Amino acid sequence: MIDFTYCAPTRYRFGHGAENHAGDELSALGCKKVLLVYGHSSAERSGLIDRVEASLKAASIQWHILKGIDPNPTDGPVREGIEICRREGIDGLLAVGGGSVIDTAKAIAAGVPYQGDFWDFWAGKAVINAALPVGVVLTIPAAGSEGSGNSVITNTATNAKISLRTDFWLRPKFALLDPELTFSLPPFQTACGIADMMAHIYERYFSPTTQVEVTDRVAEGVLRAIVEEGPKVMADPTDYQARANIMWAGTLAHNGVCGCGRAEDWTSHAMEHEVSALYGVAHGAGLAVVMPAWMTFMAHHAPAKGAQMARRVFGVDIAGDDTAVALEGIARLRAFLKSLGLPLTFAELGIANPDIPAMVEALHRNKGEEIGGYYRLRAPQTEEIYRLCL
Amino acid sequence: MIDFTYCAPTRYRFGHGAENHAGDELSALGCKKVLLVYGHSSAERSGLIDRVEASLKAASIQWHILKGIDPNPTDGPVREGIEICRREGIDGLLAVGGGSVIDTAKAIAAGVPYQGDFWDFWAGKAVINAALPVGVVLTIPAAGSEGSGNSVITNTATNAKISLRTDFWLRPKFALLDPELTFSLPPFQTACGIADMMAHIYERYFSPTTQVEVTDRVAEGVLRAIVEEGPKVMADPTDYQARANIMWAGTLAHNGVCGCGRAEDWTSHAMEHEVSALYGVAHGAGLAVVMPAWMTFMAHHAPAKGAQMARRVFGVDIAGDDTAVALEGIARLRAFLKSLGLPLTFAELGIANPDIPAMVEALHRNKGEEIGGYYRLRAPQTEEIYRLCL
Repeated sequence: MIDFTYCAPTRYRFGHGAENHAGDELSALGCKKVLLVYGHSSAERSGLIDRVEASLKAASIQWHILKGIDPNPTDGPVREGIEICRREGIDGLLAVGGGSVIDTAKAIAAGVPYQGDFWDFWAGKAVINAALPVGVVLTIPAAGSEGSGNSVITNTATNAKISLRTDFWLRPKFALLDPELTFSLPPFQTACGIADMMAHIYERYFSPTTQVEVTDRVAEGVLRAIVEEGPKVMADPTDYQARANIMWAGTLAHNGVCGCGRAEDWTSHAMEHEVSALYGVAHGAGLAVVMPAWMTFMAHHAPAKGAQMARRVFGVDIAGDDTAVALEGIARLRAFLKSLGLPLTFAELGIANPDIPAMVEALHRNKGEEIGGYYRLRAPQTEEIYRLCL
Repeated sequence: MIDFTYCAPTRYRFGHGAENHAGDELSALGCKKVLLVYGHSSAERSGLIDRVEASLKAASIQWHILKGIDPNPTDGPVREGIEICRREGIDGLLAVGGGSVIDTAKAIAAGVPYQGDFWDFWAGKAVINAALPVGVVLTIPAAGSEGSGNSVITNTATNAKISLRTDFWLRPKFALLDPELTFSLPPFQTACGIADMMAHIYERYFSPTTQVEVTDRVAEGVLRAIVEEGPKVMADPTDYQARANIMWAGTLAHNGVCGCGRAEDWTSHAMEHEVSALYGVAHGAGLAVVMPAWMTFMAHHAPAKGAQMARRVFGVDIAGDDTAVALEGIARLRAFLKSLGLPLTFAELGIANPDIPAMVEALHRNKGEEIGGYYRLRAPQTEEIYRLCL
């Protein structure tokens, strides 16, 4: 284990009707007037927005609305939100949605009290030291933003998609997690969410730091639970218990507990970002392709952790060296992802002729000549990994 | 899973020299003058108190001292601490020690802003709604109080030992966890700490709530890590990595993450309390005797969870029904505890003629006619469990 600081103060209210506590929770934070941020009309049609507004009203909280947040959220709505908050004297944010909505709300929250342009934080030109409180009603278990201090925003002017990580300021004050809100998620989106949360664990699990037994075992435990519960939510989208387990797994996957005491990797996310940037694929589906490809490269160059994962998560018990064991684990991971209906290759992802040189070039331009926490990679290696996606 | 609220906002600084951040952390909380609470001279002799005081001085924080806190802390020092805090205008507490010291500091923190007597909270006559901030420098990984909202205090007038559990107010604001501070713990105290943290997990794990796969897997993961790392700290008390894993396991065992989404049990703790009350044994050693005895009773009456534990934590893979599997798991747990040098029977605990009727009587007088979350027990059953300790 290496030295670490860990603080995950988000207050989770989990279970039936959790969204009806939005008003109480904001009120307990001293909020009087909030910005309600959400995506498109599905949350209105389902009646969720009505219920959330009723809860605000019951707590005598006023609100303004910023809606229409798209996947891969951009700086435009962030600036619009900051302007509304300043103009209306807003003192808190309520994000109702998944990662894109939450990340947008977080960026607005940090931008409001800052004199300069909010992008300064994402560009590394300034450090957040104040933010409005953010609350969350989660509708998509995937990004883990409801419990993380991260926010991923794309700057449309430069096309830079940057993930900002903070220890404290971007963590939601509360997250309301009602598994029933996820019953209506389409199967593909459910599956993408599962791939995303698994990736959040793997990015922390594949670490150069050894002797992190407690954190390893916690990470493996959450992965095993996902492997157990994932097929159940695909088979019956209204299986409350399975939905509940997947929802909680998505939060633990990214609130930091699976990373305590070790360096992390994050190469698969970086490589997938370039696939998404060029071809606009769903993040989770892209990860289902890139992550096992990255692991396959590792099985040949640094197989120890993959072999441990294979043995402990997928119960691989075959003869052979760590490479063979790791490859068998990856085969089982791929079979699991495929069983959820996810693609395993660029072709299955709908990319007929992937421009691998362009992805490699953009990857290293954005992230540096050498990348990777678990194993250092340069262009020839990342190209090899992209080719393993074919 | 059942509905739950979970908020564990303690800020953990973990690693080499963590104690030297006491001043910064208190300063960040706005503290100017604190009460430094600790036990006996070992923390002075080791130089720890000097280092902590140097850190306070560097942060321009003044302090008063309350020392001499004993195991099984009582109301006397709590009242003394409250008086010092009020008299001196103290605005925060720093506990340097294990569970007894931390629990005392928490009780003082809650008592200072309260008009009545602090015991009202422990007696269930009042609810805490304010407290001074508490910081911790942990020296004994065992009680888990550094990350919990609990505090166990004994009232000397009535001899009532009461564990108060709060969601928020009794949680430390920060905990500084330096594994090196645990190098000097005697083997028996190290082993008792391991039994205590395992019990904190088991008390949550043995639950009437089913379909809590994520929380089960996390709990099993921490248990497996303890089983892996425990023997290493016994073999080499200065093995930093093993000490670090045990320290972090002790925190996760009791900060609530192993309990999310389910009802809990806590019978073994209640039954051990009566053994300690009558015979003054170390809490962890008492648990090493009582907890497997309780599990043995369960193997015959409600074997499912014990069998799951046996398979997943101890890798039991024998033919037979759940009872047989659970019993084999208990045998392995006992072998593990024995390997740490812990007692497994009342006799090994040094109790030659245990007064079981007195323990049963006190248990049900304090806790009610019927007790237990996983399985309901009345006097005939708890007597049977105490007899399994012989």
